[in-house]
Amino acid sequence: MKYGVVIFPSKPLQDKVNGYRKRYDPHYALITPHITLKSPFDAEDQDIQQLAEKLRRIAALHQPFTYHVSKVKSFEPVNNVIYFKVDPNSTLDSLYKEMHTEDFPGKEPYAFVPHITIGQQLSNDEHSDVYGSLQMESIDLTEKADRFHLLYQLDNGSWTVYETFLLGKDA
Amino acid sequence: MKYGVVIFPSKPLQDKVNGYRKRYDPHYALITPHITLKSPFDAEDQDIQQLAEKLRRIAALHQPFTYHVSKVKSFEPVNNVIYFKVDPNSTLDSLYKEMHTEDFPGKEPYAFVPHITIGQQLSNDEHSDVYGSLQMESIDLTEKADRFHLLYQLDNGSWTVYETFLLGKDA
Repeated sequence: MKYGVVIFPSKPLQDKVNGYRKRYDPHYALITPHITLKSPFDAEDQDIQQLAEKLRRIAALHQPFTYHVSKVKSFEPVNNVIYFKVDPNSTLDSLYKEMHTEDFPGKEPYAFVPHITIGQQLSNDEHSDVYGSLQMESIDLTEKADRFHLLYQLDNGSWTVYETFLLGKDA
Repeated sequence: MKYGVVIFPSKPLQDKVNGYRKRYDPHYALITPHITLKSPFDAEDQDIQQLAEKLRRIAALHQPFTYHVSKVKSFEPVNNVIYFKVDPNSTLDSLYKEMHTEDFPGKEPYAFVPHITIGQQLSNDEHSDVYGSLQMESIDLTEKADRFHLLYQLDNGSWTVYETFLLGKDA
């Protein structure tokens, strides 16, 4: 099965992001807006309890934190993904690092750039147009995070939450 | 904000249900297949921690259980909802009962009939056609449940998981 780990931003920010995703993100209907902590990876069904146990321990070792969303950026030319940039954050970095040890399956193709996708799979022309107009948007939001979620993917591409992990709770 | 409480069936059953929902359920893209334990209800944002605490206690008081999915049924003439019937189950009944005390906001318009929706908002003609053909489907599945989830609804109608509650764990 394919699994992933994400943080869902606050409802107001998810609503704002969906306003863009509806037009610019073909994954709009598959998952609500999120920050990816661990990209989709394969694991056996029977390994998931053990993975959850490891994630529970990681959650216990981190306290709830705030993060700052500062502007619209793009991963172009690597790919035509437009996103809300999440400013460098030591807790996010630490969560990411702990989920990318040899204890976990899954390799990341890119360095960790925490972000919330607002558009993807755009043609080059679309990307230029949309990115050009969105860069004018001013964004300056401080968000609280006190949990992350382990999800699995269904055959139709949509994601179901397997478990929530609360930061700073005993494992 | 609007909240709800659900159980997600196993991935194989979710995939099977989505095969129908894709054609027959306009909520297909808003939430993955589920058994509703508590229908959408309104609660203040600041009350959610307290609701979660109550749900944690309910989860702790119930052990993981199995349930049986036995046939295709319809709520017609009340409404044109076609669903997989979940056979009477004492743990499901007890979970439902505990979530419908005066401690919780939200009233249920109907008696509790545990089910997994596979089609809804069908015209009368569509309903007859689809229900007629689906009733021939034989279904006989035993599913395990060891958790339920509290969700909230975004402005676009989709649902995000707020928290997972594991059955039989200390609150």
